[in-house]
Amino acid sequence: MRIVLIGFGTVAQGLAELLLSHLENGALDISDWRVVGISDTLKGSAYHEGGLPLRRVLDMVGCGQSLSSVADWGTPWNALTMIEHADADVVVEATYTDIETARPALDHVRAAIERGMHVATTNKGPLALAAKELTKLAAEHHVSLRYEGTVMAGTPLLNLIRGPLAGSRITEMRGILNGTTNYVLSRMEEGLDYSGALAEAQELGYAEAVPNADVLGHDALAKVAILAATVFGASIPLAEIPCRGITGITREKVARAAASGRRHKLLGRVWRENDRVRASVGPELIGREHPLAAVHGAGNAMTVVTEALGEVTIVGPGAGRRETGFALLNDLIHIQNHR
Amino acid sequence: MRIVLIGFGTVAQGLAELLLSHLENGALDISDWRVVGISDTLKGSAYHEGGLPLRRVLDMVGCGQSLSSVADWGTPWNALTMIEHADADVVVEATYTDIETARPALDHVRAAIERGMHVATTNKGPLALAAKELTKLAAEHHVSLRYEGTVMAGTPLLNLIRGPLAGSRITEMRGILNGTTNYVLSRMEEGLDYSGALAEAQELGYAEAVPNADVLGHDALAKVAILAATVFGASIPLAEIPCRGITGITREKVARAAASGRRHKLLGRVWRENDRVRASVGPELIGREHPLAAVHGAGNAMTVVTEALGEVTIVGPGAGRRETGFALLNDLIHIQNHR
Repeated sequence: MRIVLIGFGTVAQGLAELLLSHLENGALDISDWRVVGISDTLKGSAYHEGGLPLRRVLDMVGCGQSLSSVADWGTPWNALTMIEHADADVVVEATYTDIETARPALDHVRAAIERGMHVATTNKGPLALAAKELTKLAAEHHVSLRYEGTVMAGTPLLNLIRGPLAGSRITEMRGILNGTTNYVLSRMEEGLDYSGALAEAQELGYAEAVPNADVLGHDALAKVAILAATVFGASIPLAEIPCRGITGITREKVARAAASGRRHKLLGRVWRENDRVRASVGPELIGREHPLAAVHGAGNAMTVVTEALGEVTIVGPGAGRRETGFALLNDLIHIQNHR
Repeated sequence: MRIVLIGFGTVAQGLAELLLSHLENGALDISDWRVVGISDTLKGSAYHEGGLPLRRVLDMVGCGQSLSSVADWGTPWNALTMIEHADADVVVEATYTDIETARPALDHVRAAIERGMHVATTNKGPLALAAKELTKLAAEHHVSLRYEGTVMAGTPLLNLIRGPLAGSRITEMRGILNGTTNYVLSRMEEGLDYSGALAEAQELGYAEAVPNADVLGHDALAKVAILAATVFGASIPLAEIPCRGITGITREKVARAAASGRRHKLLGRVWRENDRVRASVGPELIGREHPLAAVHGAGNAMTVVTEALGEVTIVGPGAGRRETGFALLNDLIHIQNHR
């Protein structure tokens, strides 16, 4: 299986490290996998039909050297040129997320599918804005489109729904989809005020300097849209999903909730109501005895409500280099098993 | 896909109801599935190549009528005769569990595999005692052996491990595998003493009149052996796994644990230690902030520790007619997709 990596930031490097580790210890049979191309606007581009030397590539990128500078396999190709010219089976799209336009990732995913290549991506943009269109396009071209890492990083929520929970009839999903806000709320329960907890999250690298995407709920919103499309086949414009963040939660509210045995959690929610699919993002009060209430710090969790099983909850990491890289690895395993 | 049901108790009836429901609403494409044979020592036997009328079968069994009495498709066949004579693709083994000898279920599973039929089972006996032998036998005969319902009922733990978590390198699993004891411990935290909590569990139908299999840890022990075989390929005799139940837990111990922010949980555990696979069952103290501590009442949960993701925890039902029937349905879906 020949793989092209579009975008070679943290997540794609996490994948490359996992691939190297598995190639070395042989626990997973991926000996015929080759990363033949890499294209990154900052780190340069490389292409070699026989496969690129991943260890050396990682070392170069670690030292700030451009991949394009290598005589044997450096290229000047940008992402789209790489997708057009590479002789490959799968494109991994892991460039930055733009939740307004989904560009340029959306163009990359479309181009790859139209060339008949499978796609694995961690990029929330294309799926939050165009999951339905892309799923249809992939079906028309008989290729797989996998995006486990767009929701809950490598915690296998989407694969759980599509595989082991198939046939259980999902009626609702609700969960903690943003680790930064969950960290802030957890620390507020321990006595910090909002700005103190947020500053701490920023120091730890959980929150950006401009934390709006997290604290206003926009990150969770994108994931909720992806779930609506994946679980219920519903294409809901982001602007139509009610979305509140955690900026209105005060230390006093947190203390009052605790006194009544409850916790504030920023919940993303998708459910069926009569014939419509509805979705929302906002802080909700949860009884302390529910599994979602037990998710502390930067963790993520999702409760899937099914007719056959009642509630099933999965708890796991929601971010991280290796954790999100693993989502791509699992997508690639699925593509290999089903192509 | 032609299916034979060996054992038609609660779980197999739960499966039959799910099949009927899916055949009626068409959400799942199982229109070419047929239950062609049923054999149960109490409820009688039936066989019809074109498929048995499930609604009528369920009604008859509900009214205590023997299936063998129907002229068109009643038969005198016992389980082994059914397996030998039925023209079928899959055998569902759901007779009673015998954890000492695994009989007669072990004979049913062996016979089905040797006739080249796939097997889906909820019976812990054959898997706890002979998972390695049966897995090998199934591979030799190129058939699937699926047993999702032997651990955590329909909560898809085994399918999660075999599918979405493949490649994450599991180093340890620990969890709550017995709902009865978890119910008793939960109620003891609320102030009941051991015998009061147990009596309540018996009234609710969670615990048997002779509750030894639950309270001494034997039920969890069988599941731990199944996990050791499934996850690590290790065949550990039950007698070699340290096993303690909850009979030594007093209300005072529970109160002391609560005062220090911890909870007693009966944990089944499997892990790698150097080159060995180890396992244990026994009560352990868990910090109140861990997802396993948030499992109350008769629920089950498992924390899977992986190199790629750290801890991933799945929480869900551990028993129930429909819940365990769903495990079989999911096994059948898997068999259909992979045969």
